[in-house]
Amino acid sequence: MNFTKMHGLGNDFIMLYGYQELPDEAGELAIRLCNRHFGIGADGLVFILPSAEADFQMRIFNSDGSEPEQCGNAIRCVAKYVYDHGLVGEQTSIQIATLGGGIQTVTIRAEAGKAAAVRVDMGEPVLNGLDIPTVLDQALVKDEAIEVDGETFRFTAVSMGNPHCVILVEDALHFDLHTWGPKLENHPLFPKRTNVEFMTVRNRNYIDMRVWERGAGPTLACGTGACATVVAAALNGISDRSATVSLAGGELLIEWDEASNRVFMTGPAAEVYSGKLSE
Amino acid sequence: MNFTKMHGLGNDFIMLYGYQELPDEAGELAIRLCNRHFGIGADGLVFILPSAEADFQMRIFNSDGSEPEQCGNAIRCVAKYVYDHGLVGEQTSIQIATLGGGIQTVTIRAEAGKAAAVRVDMGEPVLNGLDIPTVLDQALVKDEAIEVDGETFRFTAVSMGNPHCVILVEDALHFDLHTWGPKLENHPLFPKRTNVEFMTVRNRNYIDMRVWERGAGPTLACGTGACATVVAAALNGISDRSATVSLAGGELLIEWDEASNRVFMTGPAAEVYSGKLSE
Repeated sequence: MNFTKMHGLGNDFIMLYGYQELPDEAGELAIRLCNRHFGIGADGLVFILPSAEADFQMRIFNSDGSEPEQCGNAIRCVAKYVYDHGLVGEQTSIQIATLGGGIQTVTIRAEAGKAAAVRVDMGEPVLNGLDIPTVLDQALVKDEAIEVDGETFRFTAVSMGNPHCVILVEDALHFDLHTWGPKLENHPLFPKRTNVEFMTVRNRNYIDMRVWERGAGPTLACGTGACATVVAAALNGISDRSATVSLAGGELLIEWDEASNRVFMTGPAAEVYSGKLSE
Repeated sequence: MNFTKMHGLGNDFIMLYGYQELPDEAGELAIRLCNRHFGIGADGLVFILPSAEADFQMRIFNSDGSEPEQCGNAIRCVAKYVYDHGLVGEQTSIQIATLGGGIQTVTIRAEAGKAAAVRVDMGEPVLNGLDIPTVLDQALVKDEAIEVDGETFRFTAVSMGNPHCVILVEDALHFDLHTWGPKLENHPLFPKRTNVEFMTVRNRNYIDMRVWERGAGPTLACGTGACATVVAAALNGISDRSATVSLAGGELLIEWDEASNRVFMTGPAAEVYSGKLSE
């Protein structure tokens, strides 16, 4: 079995191209191949499959065998893979069918014949309190108080398909994620728990952010979290609608388009090596 | 750059063959390639180099760029690599020069033309209290009391080039390593700290063991720890001098040879895939 190893801001994937359809044992294969000591090692296994409606179909399996609906870091890897390997010719606008997101159109920014960055349409933010969901029945959950252990933070809530609690802090880079992350994740204001973003706005177009992901803790990069951060900062008037978010794994450019209300995320993807399983 | 990914009981290595000598930046290369999100991902980077005195020279660099003197899991991978890739023909006794251990002779047990297991001479155990080192000035440190937090354990100390504190417990598989490991590692009885092995003797030839490695915590497999465990069990008369040790990553056969006083370790190595760095 031949594969290619890629990552998007350190979120790393084993890419499989050549299957005509998803194998039955895809989840078990992901568990085996993603094992970092006995297998290849990765956060996820990505199948690039043929599609009747789009250029390609992408299916992703986590290292525990579960299948998430989509992944912003993985879709950039898929786009770079098909572009760099000549599977779409000169075409820089690529349609990728995903399990949860229908058909997503991604755009390649090419440099010297390779994809240097990929722009992904992340959809419209959900701002209504009950829809995010929070327990607050209001059209906007902006600059509200949230109290944990006697400490009060100010937060703005945004859903990008998953809930986010964005909090402005003095120094996001040195914030104590492990103390406050789990308490905010499980706060009763968020009935389905929440991702938590701690941001420091360096200027109107540059934000430092560290994320505590729901169910996963601190990660190198969370695409929906970066989108929610810029939406929250713009809603509070402390950043423009277009800003670069600096995460532990690297930078993402987030643009909240005024006309369409859609959020676009532009970021890198990298191919590290190609491999062939032994035996 | 072409490489091969292998592991010995889950202790995984990037194997490089083809260099005529060690590159200057070997430590930096190890840090970059061993990174599990941005690089290939491994516990260590192993160079298989030519040698004037032995069949090959092995040099290993940890994922932090440091160079350990030797590694029992890595040397089995080197032996399997050179045998399976036809670099030593039918020769099953292979001499490998290491940084700390001089020239080690390893023996291949072949099945269907591939190395199924590798036997490594791990040298003589050191039993003198001050030489291990412990603070106890006695010829043997056997079945002694060690107290931590009001709890008393019985231990036997053995050095296999590095210090080990072997403790008999009711159920090694479910023992609370994280509570007791660090306290025993840093106990004042061991001036250079110590590795800690918790063993349960299932019969005279089979021992369950879990290890807390000095400076590393719980690991899947520790070859010197498995050797120390059998030496300690045999000294206490609860196992034979030859026994299989079951670790989290798999099994090792340990033989403490009576005539030579040397300890031999036989275990597997596995090739997972071959790869080629992109660009």
